[in-house]
Amino acid sequence: MPGRARNILFIMYDQLRFDYLSCAGHPFLETPNMDRLAETGVRFSRCYVQSPICGASRMSFYTGRYAHSHGAQWNGFPLKVGELTLGDHMRRIGMDCWLVGRTHMRADAEGMRRLGLEPDSIVGARVSECGFDVFVRDDGLWAHGPDGYYDDGRSPYNAYLNSKGYAGENPWHDYANAGIDEDSNMASGFLLMNADREANVEEPDSETPWLTSRAIEFLDKHVGGTSKPWLCHLSYIKPHWPYIAPAPYHDMYGGNQIVPVHRNHAELENAHPVYAAFTRNPISKALSQKEVRERVISAYMGLIKQCDDQLGRLLDHMEASGRMEDTMIVLTSDHGDYLGDHWLGEKNLFHEASVKVPLIIYDPDREADSTRGSICDALVESIDTVATFVEAGGGAVPDHIVEGRSLLPFVRGKALDSWRDYVISEYDYSVSPIAAGLGLSPRDARLFMVADKRWKFVHAEGGMRSMLFDLETDPDEFVDLGECPHHAKVRDMMYERLGQWARRMSQRTTRSDDEIEAMRGKSERRGIVLGARDATDVEQELISKYVGSPGRGAG
Amino acid sequence: MPGRARNILFIMYDQLRFDYLSCAGHPFLETPNMDRLAETGVRFSRCYVQSPICGASRMSFYTGRYAHSHGAQWNGFPLKVGELTLGDHMRRIGMDCWLVGRTHMRADAEGMRRLGLEPDSIVGARVSECGFDVFVRDDGLWAHGPDGYYDDGRSPYNAYLNSKGYAGENPWHDYANAGIDEDSNMASGFLLMNADREANVEEPDSETPWLTSRAIEFLDKHVGGTSKPWLCHLSYIKPHWPYIAPAPYHDMYGGNQIVPVHRNHAELENAHPVYAAFTRNPISKALSQKEVRERVISAYMGLIKQCDDQLGRLLDHMEASGRMEDTMIVLTSDHGDYLGDHWLGEKNLFHEASVKVPLIIYDPDREADSTRGSICDALVESIDTVATFVEAGGGAVPDHIVEGRSLLPFVRGKALDSWRDYVISEYDYSVSPIAAGLGLSPRDARLFMVADKRWKFVHAEGGMRSMLFDLETDPDEFVDLGECPHHAKVRDMMYERLGQWARRMSQRTTRSDDEIEAMRGKSERRGIVLGARDATDVEQELISKYVGSPGRGAG
Repeated sequence: MPGRARNILFIMYDQLRFDYLSCAGHPFLETPNMDRLAETGVRFSRCYVQSPICGASRMSFYTGRYAHSHGAQWNGFPLKVGELTLGDHMRRIGMDCWLVGRTHMRADAEGMRRLGLEPDSIVGARVSECGFDVFVRDDGLWAHGPDGYYDDGRSPYNAYLNSKGYAGENPWHDYANAGIDEDSNMASGFLLMNADREANVEEPDSETPWLTSRAIEFLDKHVGGTSKPWLCHLSYIKPHWPYIAPAPYHDMYGGNQIVPVHRNHAELENAHPVYAAFTRNPISKALSQKEVRERVISAYMGLIKQCDDQLGRLLDHMEASGRMEDTMIVLTSDHGDYLGDHWLGEKNLFHEASVKVPLIIYDPDREADSTRGSICDALVESIDTVATFVEAGGGAVPDHIVEGRSLLPFVRGKALDSWRDYVISEYDYSVSPIAAGLGLSPRDARLFMVADKRWKFVHAEGGMRSMLFDLETDPDEFVDLGECPHHAKVRDMMYERLGQWARRMSQRTTRSDDEIEAMRGKSERRGIVLGARDATDVEQELISKYVGSPGRGAG
Repeated sequence: MPGRARNILFIMYDQLRFDYLSCAGHPFLETPNMDRLAETGVRFSRCYVQSPICGASRMSFYTGRYAHSHGAQWNGFPLKVGELTLGDHMRRIGMDCWLVGRTHMRADAEGMRRLGLEPDSIVGARVSECGFDVFVRDDGLWAHGPDGYYDDGRSPYNAYLNSKGYAGENPWHDYANAGIDEDSNMASGFLLMNADREANVEEPDSETPWLTSRAIEFLDKHVGGTSKPWLCHLSYIKPHWPYIAPAPYHDMYGGNQIVPVHRNHAELENAHPVYAAFTRNPISKALSQKEVRERVISAYMGLIKQCDDQLGRLLDHMEASGRMEDTMIVLTSDHGDYLGDHWLGEKNLFHEASVKVPLIIYDPDREADSTRGSICDALVESIDTVATFVEAGGGAVPDHIVEGRSLLPFVRGKALDSWRDYVISEYDYSVSPIAAGLGLSPRDARLFMVADKRWKFVHAEGGMRSMLFDLETDPDEFVDLGECPHHAKVRDMMYERLGQWARRMSQRTTRSDDEIEAMRGKSERRGIVLGARDATDVEQELISKYVGSPGRGAG
């Protein structure tokens, strides 16, 4: 059927800020291909991730569940055996579910051993790979140090670089993410002052084009009626650090194309202890220096520009091969990047730069014609994508498992009876030395954000005060009202919402609401007679056949 | 080593009220064997179950986790694949974990299929059996009706009865749980007016002696140094309904030995909608009739007396065989029984009769000598038993998975730095027609209790008001202060506690606190250098070998 989403291409960038797209208003960076997708789809302007950190955010994207529900709350925390994934949901409705790129998922090896799941069986491989069938997996973080590699896996990208003549064990670091300094020495992209150097790799051999080529291979292999409908998760590491770009992207941006830093000295006065601690960590301190920040942003913008160019290459290929007519495309990121704003580097906290992400949904269905090119400002959570995919694939969303809601009504211009009043995000910093610095036990080093269109509230475990921002009067998020006596009622309301959310039914995943309703009052038909004084209280069929009857003496 | 708990016998009755033991103050019922255990152990006077319903309560006993954490919130809701059980924890520390009797556990067949777990493999059998190795499983509810049996399993007890000459497909119902009426017809124990009849079974063939014999067989087979240390869960269906007892227990109690009904008309005035609905269900209406109540309680007391006699038989056997010196004995129940109190029958709500259970811990260790015969009034939850068993077995409690705390310090007279300030219980009545009657969706038909030694608070989802009882001024729990304007602060405090509990870290089960603390600051040693401006910010070893160095040109 033409004009129907037979397949789904689920594109994710890593650490791409919501406002570094031209369609989202960046004044200097042009992203015509992301814009092109937005013009033919719907751009969601308030999409929040469930946790502003790769691993936890992705596990929410891949399960449709809050971090508080799936428990993989930080990088390297295994997703426990038994959690249902996107792959489980898509396969249930007859679609394949493929991975091209990165997940940052760690398998629950102990749980798999306990259940006797072999990693090389089909089931074991899927459990190990977050539910995906792997076309390519490369997590894109091949950092190496005295204690070994950060990532225990094997890098097909490093193998590719070796095959192209880039020497050594780890050309990902030594070439693709390093430049050359004035003395012809390697200049690692991990050192921020190297960010404006040219990466020592041919541009087509750098990570983003390499993965795009793999995606095109995937598309060419999964064409037409012979292959099952598929969801393909195309997942890039960029524009995530190391901040260094290949030519020509390394020096496309600079000078007055760098957006001024967004911060205010008022933020540091009476700062919340957790926020204050994050402003003092090395990446925040480094990004607070103008010189570092400008070099980093120059590279960051170059990397995004390269992502956009590669997106154009991919979209052209899809157009030429007819995929734009049968494939839904969803584009997003796992979190943002402070880039020095709010005196911070990296992500982790809940200012818009960190917790809000781009989300564009292109739906080839004719029902979506009425919304093309529009912006939707509904409060969206990243867990909504799983529900959207299931509904787009023609299935019913198993809402006793998937906590997000389908966005298809927004894309197809359908009326909705109700929508959520607030979004939730969480951050578990138990692994951070900041937790130790604040004297917090691992279970107290946790933050919860509750936000609506007006207020953004953050609760900190461990007996600390909360934070509160008025997004209407203070869209800059400079003024923390967490101790303001005039805002006690707002904080109370936010605590009520947080309580309601925390009490939610998140683990009753083996019984759907429909099954529960069907169970009501059925046990009597299986002989469980409760509250019957005598035979007159019980229906005749039960009495005559099951619960004792005149003439059925048993003596 | 003499006087050390090598084994653990974990005895559970079903629906045994906390106050139907003579050691707990029952004025007419003598339970000398339960008392004997209490005299040599510690009796906990404030043990609350995690949910006053068989299935959910037991899944908390068997996982050490709140119902909100494990999700099996009602009878017949499968315990999801992946949840760790008592068996997993005991086997990890080198102990076997056996079942003799009932669990009311339903396997997650869909989850097992998804993971390819065969029910007849060792792993699959354990996952199907709530982590236990099965010596005997008989859930004791072989009700049968037009839609089939309530329980899909097979009853070894029915097989036993057949072998003893009790005829038919379901002698559990037709003989063990039925009497004979005046016309020599079967008189089902499900009909409450039959409760004072003599069950049509020889006493030694009735359920409690039959299971006790199986337990003695177990003990005889697992003796001494040749068998591994074990935990054996001996789990009786009685004194759970059908309320009917074999001679001589059927007419041991009656008349003025029945404790007067504990209720007050004030309870029905301005009653909370959920409470009011439960008072109107058939079992509550039936138990509100004096004649029904007295017959039921007569049988209930007889069944408990039989349980006590069989406990005596078991303890005598253990004494004679030396098991009292090497075996910890824990005796409890999965919930209570209203028996007409508070205008209610069955369990389900949170008055003491329903949510509080007996808990006695006998520890042969000499360290426990100082506490023998004492009563501990600390706030205890049923999930504490798993933690107690692990510690008694010599292991460390995996407190990122098990949410309860070991009670061993109370039993061995050790000082504790802190203990919990409140207990939690939950009730999910989504399957009840009451939910439909109140117009509630399945996810809103939930109650949460928060109780300390002074206050008992109940939050109801679905937009209803809360309930509150002052246990100090109103130990009868007759006066619901849920709307009292003078108690708004107490309700606020309870909501704060409920929020704290609901936000708890319950799903981060793949990383222990120790592992998390060990992870802190370790990623740099794997090459993840964050926030380094240049080489001077990075330790020499990293720079010289991994993150680029003078002399390591890569051009």
